[in-house]
Amino acid sequence: MNGADRLCDVLLANGIDVTFANPGTSEMHFVAALDRKPAMRCVLGLFEGVATGAADGYGRMAEKPAAVLLHTGPGLANGLANLHNARRAHTPIVTVVGDHASHHLAFDAPLTTDIESLARPMSHWVGRASGPESVGATAEAAIRAAETGRGVSTMILPADSAWGPVEAAPVTPIAWPVPPLPDAPTIERVAAALRAHGTRAGIVLAGRSSYGAALETAGRIAAATGARLFGEVLSARTARGRGRVPLERIPYPIDLALAALKDLDVMILVGGQEPVAFFAYPGKPSRILPESCRVETLAAVGEDEAGALAALAEALDAPAQAAAVPVAAPPALIEGLAGPLTDDAITRVVAALLPENAILADEGLTSGRSFWSLSASAAPHDYLMIPGGAIGNGIPMATGAAIACPDRKVVALQADGSAMYTVQGLWTQAREGLDVVTVIYSNRAYAILRLEMQNVGAGHFGRNAERMLDIDAPALDWVSLARGMGVEAARAETAEAFRDLFKAALGRRGPFLIEAVI
Amino acid sequence: MNGADRLCDVLLANGIDVTFANPGTSEMHFVAALDRKPAMRCVLGLFEGVATGAADGYGRMAEKPAAVLLHTGPGLANGLANLHNARRAHTPIVTVVGDHASHHLAFDAPLTTDIESLARPMSHWVGRASGPESVGATAEAAIRAAETGRGVSTMILPADSAWGPVEAAPVTPIAWPVPPLPDAPTIERVAAALRAHGTRAGIVLAGRSSYGAALETAGRIAAATGARLFGEVLSARTARGRGRVPLERIPYPIDLALAALKDLDVMILVGGQEPVAFFAYPGKPSRILPESCRVETLAAVGEDEAGALAALAEALDAPAQAAAVPVAAPPALIEGLAGPLTDDAITRVVAALLPENAILADEGLTSGRSFWSLSASAAPHDYLMIPGGAIGNGIPMATGAAIACPDRKVVALQADGSAMYTVQGLWTQAREGLDVVTVIYSNRAYAILRLEMQNVGAGHFGRNAERMLDIDAPALDWVSLARGMGVEAARAETAEAFRDLFKAALGRRGPFLIEAVI
Repeated sequence: MNGADRLCDVLLANGIDVTFANPGTSEMHFVAALDRKPAMRCVLGLFEGVATGAADGYGRMAEKPAAVLLHTGPGLANGLANLHNARRAHTPIVTVVGDHASHHLAFDAPLTTDIESLARPMSHWVGRASGPESVGATAEAAIRAAETGRGVSTMILPADSAWGPVEAAPVTPIAWPVPPLPDAPTIERVAAALRAHGTRAGIVLAGRSSYGAALETAGRIAAATGARLFGEVLSARTARGRGRVPLERIPYPIDLALAALKDLDVMILVGGQEPVAFFAYPGKPSRILPESCRVETLAAVGEDEAGALAALAEALDAPAQAAAVPVAAPPALIEGLAGPLTDDAITRVVAALLPENAILADEGLTSGRSFWSLSASAAPHDYLMIPGGAIGNGIPMATGAAIACPDRKVVALQADGSAMYTVQGLWTQAREGLDVVTVIYSNRAYAILRLEMQNVGAGHFGRNAERMLDIDAPALDWVSLARGMGVEAARAETAEAFRDLFKAALGRRGPFLIEAVI
Repeated sequence: MNGADRLCDVLLANGIDVTFANPGTSEMHFVAALDRKPAMRCVLGLFEGVATGAADGYGRMAEKPAAVLLHTGPGLANGLANLHNARRAHTPIVTVVGDHASHHLAFDAPLTTDIESLARPMSHWVGRASGPESVGATAEAAIRAAETGRGVSTMILPADSAWGPVEAAPVTPIAWPVPPLPDAPTIERVAAALRAHGTRAGIVLAGRSSYGAALETAGRIAAATGARLFGEVLSARTARGRGRVPLERIPYPIDLALAALKDLDVMILVGGQEPVAFFAYPGKPSRILPESCRVETLAAVGEDEAGALAALAEALDAPAQAAAVPVAAPPALIEGLAGPLTDDAITRVVAALLPENAILADEGLTSGRSFWSLSASAAPHDYLMIPGGAIGNGIPMATGAAIACPDRKVVALQADGSAMYTVQGLWTQAREGLDVVTVIYSNRAYAILRLEMQNVGAGHFGRNAERMLDIDAPALDWVSLARGMGVEAARAETAEAFRDLFKAALGRRGPFLIEAVI
């Protein structure tokens, strides 16, 4: 066997059985090794950003890493934007980047690049195999770092480390350390703060605290203390829908964020960092919490959020149940719906019809902004956003989520401009037969930038600005684009047409795209 | 005025009047400043790799930089693969990457990244404005580095440097240093080597030496000494066609390269570096020149290749004309052509019908490999390849070349797998009405990787390898994809249908795509 075989064995022994791949020549021995391992599912992306974004969506839903296979520095570069999103989402990913054989690097062949320099900004851990016998230990270090640090590990695999011989030997799965819990003084300090400040205290639920048992426990803590529960501006994964503990979303627009948080004396962080302004604006603060607001960390990234919240609930003697959430009726719009299609009508239809246990992948940006509030009254679902703000996350994220959860319907709300960044992901949905309904908000503009231009005081646009902010000439034909990649598609131009199309799309299996012209 | 206005003034004062852009929020003040400068042509790409690849194609043809406008670290990351190609092509480019306002960086907002670390591997020069008054000098340093070093300059523009006020002041164009010529001993040493070794000497013409007057001079030197003239494995730009000084292309497959170069005693480099194996293979050398072959540099990158060759020709007392090139008849296949379409038939039709003074952008990879030899008998044209080997260069390169040379027909030979990386470039061709005919070699596989799998000794492919090397299920429908982006398109499945379609496409203006099913 060779180094590449050892790498496959280590991945599989540790439960990593999906590889999102876009290989090149320097990875051919790894491809050959994967080919000898039918237990590994290899999913091809026709662009590296599809592979990394799919690994992000997969990792968020599966709570374990996928592997990603990329080709030297340029291949890694193409995948970096979605590794950035994964890093901000604290998604574990093991990225394997092939490189030239080590003896070839000194010759500066055309594809030679400084892979470490490219990898570091988007990686929690970066390492390089130093020979075939080192591959196993390097892979184990990469997996351990990805899982314990909830981040992106980038392992560089020189071709000679892949093709060189290694002794056949059994691989032992990694013995996982128990994720740390906060110490007693931290629990007591946080409990005291919550007791003292009541509704002037907030808790930001990030990482793995915004769904599952952790979210339920947070609801009990809120019931005990009156604390406000927040989701991040762009949250990696939140359990939403009827009966779920509701979170306030920290608004993206700076003025709304300042207003939403202005009464807080203390903010408790669980599984994430202090929320700040997404961008800087002249004369506006970077910090969105009040100057006087104290920040306490209950559980840092990689710590046991659910356990920390349980300990806190116990210290607070919290009730056994969160406050009952008034079960809102589904948005009552479906029947009388008519007229020209608007982004609001789209989100209302989606909220009303979303099937139980769906996964909602939201890169709707300006058009999708009303979905958060409506999603509280939708059927229970998981709601994924783009925590890193690097557009082009949506289609790949939906793709990866569908692979992690083959029995759940995935609905992607997708801005048109952002969709184009990783449009190739539709092909992977077709190839793998994934159950994803993609709704394109076809507004034919970078609408968010039009708003931001107004924010910077540029009211009137001339030709150059129009040419950089509008994408209407020519208009993208999303039905053609989708069909070109083997995905069935249709266009809706009225609210009732959209409702009927969306209902029909939900009623079938496999990928489907709706171009919603607004 | 503000820092962004100053940046525009410095760019325009130095002849940089095209900006390939994909902006985001942190660049809104720069967008507003560009909007106040109608002399600047702003060309939008729907993905950053389109913008950087177009700047590469533009710079190769215009012999001056375009500006590229990108959005923070993830935006830069998306553009890096084609900056890599530009770096290897020695194309001058001035990349402007917006960043958060400097005071905002400490808050680690979601889009915060280490832009310098990302930029360095693909950049000749990296700098950051340190306030609005520094923008002018930083931009001048970026332009100077790009032009004198023939490379990628990456200028980081924090939002507060863009929006902060500067004193209005006239901008003086940069006083360009004369590109250096080799010293007399170098000329004499190279001349002596060529005299001594005759046909056992070679000259690799790279950079700006493989077209124009430099190529003609090289032909005179070959006539005087018998030296063999080589083009790089993947050359940035070569003048080809009937009557042009012919170059031998250094082959890409390692065994062919070794065979082609085995008789050389000395190799002279002009405007580039020593050719080496593209990839390493077990048991094969990295160096493709014979062990005993001496290497001499006549002109390094950024030096005056044409002047150096002229001085060398004079030292050699070379004849006034290169040896007459036997004018081959155009490939005689067009009339009798029939039957199923093959990659060979495609390249023959293209070589036969290519109009005078066309630009041929070649990312045909395995399918296009026969074009080089046929191009010698085609009408005179400029031939562009992908020197960095990072696929996804082709469509953007053709786009940028068409903007640099609006009166010339651009023909893009494009492998299907590679085309998908930056397929969004078709939209820019439609928006700008560019005169580009794209020929997609639709073989529905990463054919080059199938060959490489055989090279590594993996003869039989199982399911995992098939799933990573074939892109046939579903087949991409290139006519739909092109139409989805506003580009007219048609499919050819026989040789005669392709010939007729290609002829028709050449006879009209504007972008057209032919899916050539092989």
